[in-house]
Amino acid sequence: MATLDDIARELGVSKSTVSKALSGAKDVSKAMRQSVLEKAVEMGYSRGIRSSSAPRVAVFITNMEYTKPEDFGYDIVAGFRKAAEPAGFHVEIIPLDQQIQTRTRYDEYMVLGNFCGGLFLGLSLLDPWIKEFETCKTPTVLYDNHVSGNPNVTDIGVDSIEGMRIAVSYLQSLGHTKIGYLGGALQAHVYQQRYHAFFRAMEDAGLEVLPGQAGIAYHINECLSQNLPKILEHKCTAIICSHDILAHSAMIWCADRNIRVPEELSILGFDDIPLCRYTMPPLSTIRQNRPALGKSAFYALSSQLNRVPLSSLLLHAELIQRASCSTAPVEKAKT
Amino acid sequence: MATLDDIARELGVSKSTVSKALSGAKDVSKAMRQSVLEKAVEMGYSRGIRSSSAPRVAVFITNMEYTKPEDFGYDIVAGFRKAAEPAGFHVEIIPLDQQIQTRTRYDEYMVLGNFCGGLFLGLSLLDPWIKEFETCKTPTVLYDNHVSGNPNVTDIGVDSIEGMRIAVSYLQSLGHTKIGYLGGALQAHVYQQRYHAFFRAMEDAGLEVLPGQAGIAYHINECLSQNLPKILEHKCTAIICSHDILAHSAMIWCADRNIRVPEELSILGFDDIPLCRYTMPPLSTIRQNRPALGKSAFYALSSQLNRVPLSSLLLHAELIQRASCSTAPVEKAKT
Repeated sequence: MATLDDIARELGVSKSTVSKALSGAKDVSKAMRQSVLEKAVEMGYSRGIRSSSAPRVAVFITNMEYTKPEDFGYDIVAGFRKAAEPAGFHVEIIPLDQQIQTRTRYDEYMVLGNFCGGLFLGLSLLDPWIKEFETCKTPTVLYDNHVSGNPNVTDIGVDSIEGMRIAVSYLQSLGHTKIGYLGGALQAHVYQQRYHAFFRAMEDAGLEVLPGQAGIAYHINECLSQNLPKILEHKCTAIICSHDILAHSAMIWCADRNIRVPEELSILGFDDIPLCRYTMPPLSTIRQNRPALGKSAFYALSSQLNRVPLSSLLLHAELIQRASCSTAPVEKAKT
Repeated sequence: MATLDDIARELGVSKSTVSKALSGAKDVSKAMRQSVLEKAVEMGYSRGIRSSSAPRVAVFITNMEYTKPEDFGYDIVAGFRKAAEPAGFHVEIIPLDQQIQTRTRYDEYMVLGNFCGGLFLGLSLLDPWIKEFETCKTPTVLYDNHVSGNPNVTDIGVDSIEGMRIAVSYLQSLGHTKIGYLGGALQAHVYQQRYHAFFRAMEDAGLEVLPGQAGIAYHINECLSQNLPKILEHKCTAIICSHDILAHSAMIWCADRNIRVPEELSILGFDDIPLCRYTMPPLSTIRQNRPALGKSAFYALSSQLNRVPLSSLLLHAELIQRASCSTAPVEKAKT
């Protein structure tokens, strides 16, 4: 990793100029400040890990609630802090908006903010910084996103293939053979993974997926109204949903139409958001262990800082049985 | 995790009987010893992590040399020790043969040996203990093997999909469009992964793979004699091999037939074994960073011990350019 001296030597200026430029001192010209910043980024300089005070890490959050215990992000952030703070790191939580991303390049933001590494929660493939992760120099961990080929970026998440395999084999053990799938649109990396994992798990289980038996859409209402009738026409007795919110909406859709869950239709979610205990009936789902996700995000980041270039780190998936799945209904007597 | 008291209570015997049974004392009957052992395994008891002395971890090695610096396993073991020993663990290296595996169940072996966790290097899908990893209670890390659905087992390795993507895009940047593949047989998990990753990387790069352009076999001689002539008939100008030993053999096969590497045919390996620097010409390859693999194996094991159930942990792949690949030959003038 480059030092202040290295940057000063490269630019032919004094070390104190470099130091002042990076700390935003007024007596350095804007142009000089920008040259120093660009050189610092280019050379992979990080103040965060060198300073005498605690090294600083940034947790960027977007599209995800995290302030209350019932929010999905709460336990992830808490798990991260529980691992990072005893190890001597200062954790700063930064709500990430488009403005930050369009105003400043990611690496520059991290050098200026004195951060040695960053964790991203809730980022979508449409976020401006996504492109920068292909070449960034800052040690970076992405939850539920994947960037290939940059040794400085690690992705973490839950093993979708294992999760879908557990989901399908659980429903199969309850006697279901016609299993439908409802999913979020494929703009999100994690929905792409779960969608493909569903087909793979069904194939491995020796079960067929007919056209119309698996449907996806961006908006929940659209996803339900376009796909659920088709899935029911296929006489599916169970549905796996790509995420709990969608599963919960599917249960309400069924209740409105007097379709009994789980007697007539079993519904299985994915994520185990805090809401699952309180749905009607309580939702069976595949858990993402959120405190463990937070801890493993810190392990991934410290691996990066220790020059062990992790590409991806996946947690085991876990089945949580509540009341939204039951044995498959016996086929009605033909009339 | 269960304690000696828990086991004693379950069996209705004294704590000292349990303790003596587990340490192999002579004044406990063979039958009692076996009951205690089975109960200890069933309840997930581990002495290794509780005893006042350093917790013990076992590194099992099979089908892999590791005693000399030029052996593939050497740096992995060294990396593991460099991470484990400063953290207070005692590392025991155990050459693993079929006899150990058929004589004792894995979990029992670990309880009797006083180990809190195990790392396996070089295991094949035919090894007897492989089946036991689906249900074992001992925290376990497998290098280049995958077991789905057991929260106590983590697999580690290098990201094959990324590796093949880097390989194909490197050769493409040199002007190659007809790229062949030679691989080890699919009994090994890692050769399965690399084989499928090759097709995926070629598809992503918009390159075609005709039948006969990718060949695999268990024995190297067979792999070369059956597949290399076909690949050359397809006018491939580059070949990716699933592992360096195979790539090296392919270079010798070419030298014997006056096919010039890399002028007429570029050959790219996978692994970066120590031999690669000394082949004729030095072999370009995709590196498995072995010291980092060893360190990450310890991170994976300590995650398990901290109840963060990792499913898999993959390192970034890295291209090592030596002299066995060059720009694609210009097509010979048609005669």
